[in-house]
Amino acid sequence: MEIDYKKELQNAAKNMIFVHDPDLLIKMMVRMIVNKARIAHASFFLHDKRKDGYLLTVSKGSLGKKIPLDLVRIDKDDVLIRFFRSHMSRFLFGREVLLYSEAKSALKNSKIKQEVKQQLAHVLYQMELLESLVCIPSYFRDELLGILLLGKKNNGKNFVDEELDFFAALNSNVTMAVRNAQLFKELGFELDRKHQLFVRTTIALAAAIEAKDHYTHGHTTRVTNLSLEIAREISQKNKGGFDAKFLENLHIASLLHDIGKIGVPEHILNKRHELTVGERNRIKEHPMIGVNILKPIKELEGSVLGVRYHHERFDGKGYPDGLRGEQIPLIASIISVADSFDAMSTDRPYRSALPKDDAINEIGHLSGRQFCPRIADTLLKLCKEGKI
Amino acid sequence: MEIDYKKELQNAAKNMIFVHDPDLLIKMMVRMIVNKARIAHASFFLHDKRKDGYLLTVSKGSLGKKIPLDLVRIDKDDVLIRFFRSHMSRFLFGREVLLYSEAKSALKNSKIKQEVKQQLAHVLYQMELLESLVCIPSYFRDELLGILLLGKKNNGKNFVDEELDFFAALNSNVTMAVRNAQLFKELGFELDRKHQLFVRTTIALAAAIEAKDHYTHGHTTRVTNLSLEIAREISQKNKGGFDAKFLENLHIASLLHDIGKIGVPEHILNKRHELTVGERNRIKEHPMIGVNILKPIKELEGSVLGVRYHHERFDGKGYPDGLRGEQIPLIASIISVADSFDAMSTDRPYRSALPKDDAINEIGHLSGRQFCPRIADTLLKLCKEGKI
Repeated sequence: MEIDYKKELQNAAKNMIFVHDPDLLIKMMVRMIVNKARIAHASFFLHDKRKDGYLLTVSKGSLGKKIPLDLVRIDKDDVLIRFFRSHMSRFLFGREVLLYSEAKSALKNSKIKQEVKQQLAHVLYQMELLESLVCIPSYFRDELLGILLLGKKNNGKNFVDEELDFFAALNSNVTMAVRNAQLFKELGFELDRKHQLFVRTTIALAAAIEAKDHYTHGHTTRVTNLSLEIAREISQKNKGGFDAKFLENLHIASLLHDIGKIGVPEHILNKRHELTVGERNRIKEHPMIGVNILKPIKELEGSVLGVRYHHERFDGKGYPDGLRGEQIPLIASIISVADSFDAMSTDRPYRSALPKDDAINEIGHLSGRQFCPRIADTLLKLCKEGKI
Repeated sequence: MEIDYKKELQNAAKNMIFVHDPDLLIKMMVRMIVNKARIAHASFFLHDKRKDGYLLTVSKGSLGKKIPLDLVRIDKDDVLIRFFRSHMSRFLFGREVLLYSEAKSALKNSKIKQEVKQQLAHVLYQMELLESLVCIPSYFRDELLGILLLGKKNNGKNFVDEELDFFAALNSNVTMAVRNAQLFKELGFELDRKHQLFVRTTIALAAAIEAKDHYTHGHTTRVTNLSLEIAREISQKNKGGFDAKFLENLHIASLLHDIGKIGVPEHILNKRHELTVGERNRIKEHPMIGVNILKPIKELEGSVLGVRYHHERFDGKGYPDGLRGEQIPLIASIISVADSFDAMSTDRPYRSALPKDDAINEIGHLSGRQFCPRIADTLLKLCKEGKI
């Protein structure tokens, strides 16, 4: 059956632009070539920037097993690479595609310099090792991005020009798509790095601020871990669960929930004796101080809810706004339970730590009064299952 | 002259994948169609997510002037849009492309329902307003991404199938490229937002920490602005100048240069009388406290140099390491000048502010002793030019 190469190319181009994984793109191309043109085997060596070599990325057909292991990576100084990097194929044969048969004939051509023939002989030896009859280089601008190697056809016939043109055109399309995919991947990595930088800087600054309050060493980290653990548990119970944005907001809100303490004088935070009413009121200002610090950052408005309301109580007797029940944003209810549990289980200036079991009982006891019952239950469940 | 449409398509696909601007892509396509097929005018309406309408993105040829202004945007409920959103063209004519002539004939076709004919008549009226003989919809999956409208050919002849196939294939390729470009753009915006979030959060937390030190209100912001101003000035004088990474590092380092003061007791920072040697030494710890806070964040290592060395002196008599001259990283030398200039020009617990001219003179006087002459000179120049 005749193959409509034009149509195949059109379809391939359409399918490939949204594949943002270079390896998968190459796999698609190699599979297509092997299947459509019925070739014994094909493989692709892709340039690896970090290693500055060409790595066997895809191998289809019988070649995979036969490639000597030390050839799975082709060095950038290898004769085959240098041959294509210097565009020798175009120079000798008028096209980028290199045919084994053509190269073999060239060795007998008296017009070709001895020096070039020597290089060509090395290239041929390399092609024999790789059992390849055709080499198709992938150029992006002036860089050699990779090489596609094809074995013999299953029917033993020679490759015809129409086929070679199709392979070259397809390979050229794939080269573009691969470069596009690489750019996408790099942008994705960049985004990830930026997110990590944001989170780590927030952690470092929150930890520095926490260090002012001598009695809360490690508190922020523990509250953050526990809040996320509670959220994950709720997510698992409910289909769909929380979206990534909620978890990100919770993460940042837990890290920053006590940020407002920076506005409370050190001598009050670290006082060893009972606080006066005035001092207590100064401490109660910390959620709103935190809100004021973070208010200018629009992207954090979801997190700010957690900072503002983490001292509200389910029965409406909390602060700063006296919200009650479902009025309290979920993000704040989660932090409230995690924060109180950690406070109960560590020493404070005015009392020593409760044993873990007692702290858990206390949370259960205050469920529906201080705490949202749904969150308190989740904490109890996590504890029962030995997860905290 | 015959046009090799296959080759044109191949070239277009190659050229388009790295154009990451949707409008430019559409412009390239429209220009190509108008020029190759010699069409009087062509235009493209692209779906706009935020406005949920179709905006005239490109108009080439004489149409641009003639389009009534209220038609520059086509509503999502417009008859033309509904026609293509419901794939009526494929249903009625067996292909997505809609020809004015074909639609006109359909009005006389007794097999077509009256209701459909009515809709078709509206579509035809819309095409007349837009002086279009051909409409080619752009679908991405099931969404109608846009519509390409073509006027009559310059030679007055009818469009032939080969041309229409070419337009449709090209339009389909461009649709993919546009979607790809949109994704790229979105990822770019996302990256930008993340960077802004990082910077703003750092600013907010740095400001909160600075607020502990009653005498330095606004100091961080002023030092940051001045540091960046100095760097830009140096950049302009030197070809090439600083790379974006250096400026980003300087930005963050200026914001965080005094972060270590969080580890110095409030009563020392805010003491109204002269400090004892012991108290002075506590304050001198702040660069290294800052380093320890930021050390875990590998991406900030360039900025940490500024935090660590911003109290070094050109003559080697600074702290914490007593570096001298060119040993001091440039980033730190810049912050040092900006920091000292701002300190001199504002009130401090132990002395009142110097007038600006005196502060500038003092910087000049200490050039080569406390300050790197190159940076001090730059500050003097900025002041002379009235830029600070």
